[in-house]
Amino acid sequence: MSSGKRKRLTLAQKIEIIKFVEAENIGIRAVAEKFNIGKTQTFAECKKVMLDRGKVFLKKLTDARNKVAKITLPFFVDGTNILTHSKSRVVLEAMKLAVNSQKRFHVFVSESSPDKSGIEMYDCLKALDIPCTLILDSAVGYIMERVDMVMVGAECVVESGGIINKIGSCTMAICAKEFKKPFYVLTESYKFSRMYPLNQKDLPNNFKYNGNNSNDDNLLHAHPSVDYTHPSYISLLFTDLGILMPSAVSDELIKLYL
Amino acid sequence: MSSGKRKRLTLAQKIEIIKFVEAENIGIRAVAEKFNIGKTQTFAECKKVMLDRGKVFLKKLTDARNKVAKITLPFFVDGTNILTHSKSRVVLEAMKLAVNSQKRFHVFVSESSPDKSGIEMYDCLKALDIPCTLILDSAVGYIMERVDMVMVGAECVVESGGIINKIGSCTMAICAKEFKKPFYVLTESYKFSRMYPLNQKDLPNNFKYNGNNSNDDNLLHAHPSVDYTHPSYISLLFTDLGILMPSAVSDELIKLYL
Repeated sequence: MSSGKRKRLTLAQKIEIIKFVEAENIGIRAVAEKFNIGKTQTFAECKKVMLDRGKVFLKKLTDARNKVAKITLPFFVDGTNILTHSKSRVVLEAMKLAVNSQKRFHVFVSESSPDKSGIEMYDCLKALDIPCTLILDSAVGYIMERVDMVMVGAECVVESGGIINKIGSCTMAICAKEFKKPFYVLTESYKFSRMYPLNQKDLPNNFKYNGNNSNDDNLLHAHPSVDYTHPSYISLLFTDLGILMPSAVSDELIKLYL
Repeated sequence: MSSGKRKRLTLAQKIEIIKFVEAENIGIRAVAEKFNIGKTQTFAECKKVMLDRGKVFLKKLTDARNKVAKITLPFFVDGTNILTHSKSRVVLEAMKLAVNSQKRFHVFVSESSPDKSGIEMYDCLKALDIPCTLILDSAVGYIMERVDMVMVGAECVVESGGIINKIGSCTMAICAKEFKKPFYVLTESYKFSRMYPLNQKDLPNNFKYNGNNSNDDNLLHAHPSVDYTHPSYISLLFTDLGILMPSAVSDELIKLYL
């Protein structure tokens, strides 16, 4: 089909993309829309588009996280106490860069039920020699008076500037606002998505519940895995496009799609 | 020592008091102060005082919970969704009375880590045939838009009108305020205590950490078991003295102790 000389993605690069897309299940729609996947006619054409876009995507992906980490760096002031939720690779990257730049800070990580991904984050921070404390999900309100800022990732940034993220982010954002602590979201711009949920009920069930129980009629008893955080609770979004106010997200989306 | 004719507490009654006081470890100080235990000179005198006060206390205790349940009844409107935290016997009693009075309502119970006492509460509600859903501690902010009121118990009511209760109550109260949902506290008046904490740090460590880890120097990593909820988040207190605003607690305390 293709000549041996054509520059192709290596198997390892392809696996990396597939692994990434599987993990970020919510972002798939945004990625597919952005890279126009599925709009071609024949399979060969489609394959070519996929491969070309894949290369662009991989490049963007690796660059984006580093860019976000770099622009977040000045916000790590020495002696800061930071609260984070669940495991976010962007937040971890930013903290790694900060600690390598000799910044001193303490991180509080919430356990993040039901999958306890906060414990994973805690272990990663420990491995980087960053001082950190694991807290209960219910202790978010308790600890808020001691932290200086909240820093979370996002599974998806919606048009309003709000985020869809691991369940508990919304609770954390409400508490942060009550205590007047800044709530920062670190995210790559490919997670921007053309959705406009108005409240938690507005989130589609296939977002809220993972594959295992999405066909279950009795969803009332299933624990949702994500929640929606309203933009009014978000102070700033750190993206590879720069530091944005939540209201700037829709402008960026218009630029991306129009 | 004493004549066989003298009316004494039965062994079962004594055990009941001891069991109760052990469970309510925070309330001990308030109870002791209120009943002047420890102000007598000899052991015999002290024993007599203890026994006499014990009788009064047992009577008060059994009456108080029923009184609270009765005055809460009109607040159970048909079709209400109620959110509760951890296990509270007063809340359970009130819900039992409501369901026996043919009220229809749905209860959301948060899991309440680390001891998962919410699961215990959930089982009790199930046994009473009350429709209920167990939610994650982190889903408090997520579920708040669907509930009509929050109803919790208290381990201790302080002079400001705030409460000390199972960790997570404070988070729940903050979210309830943000969504403008009433936050009701159901408590017996003997839990009123002469303390005035200003914030979470102000709570003594022996309150925050239970016996097992209170001698541990490294309390930073121990999960606190209670938190302080500021009176500004509390809508009403349902007590055996009547329905009180948080600001009325100090008046009642003055009446009790002066």
